[in-house]
Amino acid sequence: MDFIKNPAQIEDRSMEIIAPYLSEMDLSFEEKKIFSRIIHAAGDVDYAPIIKISPAAIDAAKAAILRGENIFTDVEMVRTGINKRTLKKFGGEIFCKVAEEDAKELAARENITRSMAAMRLFGKKLNGAIVAIGNAPTALFEVLRLVREEKIFPAVIIGVPVGFVGAADSKAELAAQNKIPFITVSGTKGGSSIAVAAVNAIMYLLDNSRN
Amino acid sequence: MDFIKNPAQIEDRSMEIIAPYLSEMDLSFEEKKIFSRIIHAAGDVDYAPIIKISPAAIDAAKAAILRGENIFTDVEMVRTGINKRTLKKFGGEIFCKVAEEDAKELAARENITRSMAAMRLFGKKLNGAIVAIGNAPTALFEVLRLVREEKIFPAVIIGVPVGFVGAADSKAELAAQNKIPFITVSGTKGGSSIAVAAVNAIMYLLDNSRN
Repeated sequence: MDFIKNPAQIEDRSMEIIAPYLSEMDLSFEEKKIFSRIIHAAGDVDYAPIIKISPAAIDAAKAAILRGENIFTDVEMVRTGINKRTLKKFGGEIFCKVAEEDAKELAARENITRSMAAMRLFGKKLNGAIVAIGNAPTALFEVLRLVREEKIFPAVIIGVPVGFVGAADSKAELAAQNKIPFITVSGTKGGSSIAVAAVNAIMYLLDNSRN
Repeated sequence: MDFIKNPAQIEDRSMEIIAPYLSEMDLSFEEKKIFSRIIHAAGDVDYAPIIKISPAAIDAAKAAILRGENIFTDVEMVRTGINKRTLKKFGGEIFCKVAEEDAKELAARENITRSMAAMRLFGKKLNGAIVAIGNAPTALFEVLRLVREEKIFPAVIIGVPVGFVGAADSKAELAAQNKIPFITVSGTKGGSSIAVAAVNAIMYLLDNSRN
């Protein structure tokens, strides 16, 4: 069997294959990078028409990373996948509470998901920070409630929860609000790998502009 | 906003929504569980026709877990997502080498990906074990080479690497061989969340049959 084994070649070839699917879309250089990484992470070009990036989202995310803001995730897989090297360089850290005792207790008490409880417990810590939700619609609904009812304002919400129960609705609500810049995908698709791809695409933009 | 917040209700409702997409397929109860969890994890019913489970795969995976075999993954996200509670109950552990020094060194020396180097370094440890590959086609190609050339025989390969460079070919090669039972998806789709969904579906089968 002969196949490409060199990581940089794999990456370049993958981006070449994806490029034609984006060529008809009116995307900035930076948007194209984020679209490409999401499509690459899903192996699915049908993401091209469903990715939504609000006008201020990329600049807001880059600025937040540069000033050392933290990233708050709904699940451990998103925390694991995010590129820590770049984040750490500017002083940021990643937090996930879904497996912690206080989130478990609150979830059991309120009969809600643990990732929803985790977001509620983060509360004011989300002000100015980056929120990355890859799995749980309930976590995204909770962050949107914190924005609406408790005037907590993250710098940007990368919200791509997945599935058939609430995911599409939670992402539609994210895309319909205009207080917080966002990256999302419409419909049922999404997932931890998609959230990670979007966050890491922004890290790569920073790495490449500052190397 | 009103939405379902109870985890068990979310799960049940999701499985109800997915069921009609599988009703025309000739699937066993256990296969249906694995298909459902993969579709749920991707938020994508188009997985239904592309999932391939070889006849012995589910029994082989269950038996391996029950006898305390380890799971070897290509990337940290797969390791993170797998349900450790059930695995640990029977004595198994999860290993991933992609971030370790020896894998980095071998990768640099041979100009191959780190996840490919990691699988080569696992070598004979893969005998009788569960291999779960969610990201790197090169890692799956390497495991198939170990089977073919070095007579290393995992109990089962859950191989769902993703992307446009080698992923479809590596999964076609997995599906074409008949030495090792496998779970895979054809084409470019896949990813860490899909590998995790397949492995965890098997854990749930074990949990439910022994509770």
